[in-house]
Amino acid sequence: MPQLLRLQCFNISSDGYGAGEGQSLERPFGHANPADLVGWAGATASWVNRAEPGGTRGLDDYFTRDMHHGIGAEIMGRNKFGPLRGPWENEEWKGWWGETPPFHTPVFVLTHYERPSFTLTDTTFHFVNATPEEALRQAREAADGNDVRLGGGVATVRAFLEADLVDTMHVVVSPIELGRGERLWSSPQEVLDRFNLETVPSPSGVTHLLFWRK
Amino acid sequence: MPQLLRLQCFNISSDGYGAGEGQSLERPFGHANPADLVGWAGATASWVNRAEPGGTRGLDDYFTRDMHHGIGAEIMGRNKFGPLRGPWENEEWKGWWGETPPFHTPVFVLTHYERPSFTLTDTTFHFVNATPEEALRQAREAADGNDVRLGGGVATVRAFLEADLVDTMHVVVSPIELGRGERLWSSPQEVLDRFNLETVPSPSGVTHLLFWRK
Repeated sequence: MPQLLRLQCFNISSDGYGAGEGQSLERPFGHANPADLVGWAGATASWVNRAEPGGTRGLDDYFTRDMHHGIGAEIMGRNKFGPLRGPWENEEWKGWWGETPPFHTPVFVLTHYERPSFTLTDTTFHFVNATPEEALRQAREAADGNDVRLGGGVATVRAFLEADLVDTMHVVVSPIELGRGERLWSSPQEVLDRFNLETVPSPSGVTHLLFWRK
Repeated sequence: MPQLLRLQCFNISSDGYGAGEGQSLERPFGHANPADLVGWAGATASWVNRAEPGGTRGLDDYFTRDMHHGIGAEIMGRNKFGPLRGPWENEEWKGWWGETPPFHTPVFVLTHYERPSFTLTDTTFHFVNATPEEALRQAREAADGNDVRLGGGVATVRAFLEADLVDTMHVVVSPIELGRGERLWSSPQEVLDRFNLETVPSPSGVTHLLFWRK
């Protein structure tokens, strides 16, 4: 079995932005309202952060259920890990996710600034100053035969697309416009030289874009 | 976590038949051409019987990939297990699937005729003469906290619907008419008193029907 590099449940606005402008501790998605962007996922029965029983079990639930299925490691950018920039002034910040992060695998955080690895419950964060190729090599080795999830954000996805390392992409387009922020693309047409695309409207109002290599 | 009873990738024709008339060793689906009914699944990368690399990774692939995800046991009818009827004259018939059945869990075969359990690779077949409630109780216990898949065929699905034991259903409607055979329903409307329904057309030409309890 090949170890795929998979983008899963990656959310953008209808004009192609994955996050708004001005990320901060209080506003992880900048000026974007997180509920407008990712509310579809929170409504599903399988959403990883669901606190109460219930939730929908329609199309969207297949995607949230599949998000961690067969994944052995994640690669994420510095800005997905936190709002801090530049050298680590201290090591108190341990991500947005509290004591039990929802990854349950090794996570490789791309950063130009060194920091020791640490473990929260069953998630170990490693900090790597490396090319996409080298980060993927390390993640594949850690994934123990399973696939690697490309966690985002936008700059990280773009870097791995640029390096032509992405095997499959599940991008969710929410019916809002953001106008500014971190833009994935102006149109999915930009990658159709390399990828097949299926466009699947969901009854919830979002549209699922499914890409795989030609 | 509740242990759901899930129908997965259950295929019917546009007029509601899950199998044609006249099942036999040579024609497991009776007069229906299996490729017309289930060809969509064989085209996907994750199809369990795929012999060669490749295959699509679009919408249909999410469903074939999910088919075994989180499943700890299966319940199937006698007619899914084989074309024989009546008492087991001998125990040579061990299912359609060869030495390595694609279940990898305990499988409970509903039959009025006793037969000892046997194991092929990592699949153990048990033969139970029991009500749907009792078969489900045994399957849940064997599933070790995971969900139970309702494997079909049509008569078995109808019996579990009748007993009101089914939690979720993924039914795939292929664009062919069979006219006769084993009929699941004349219309999915028949179960909408108890189930939510999402209808998702696939680019491959089939339609995915997703049901979950109200």
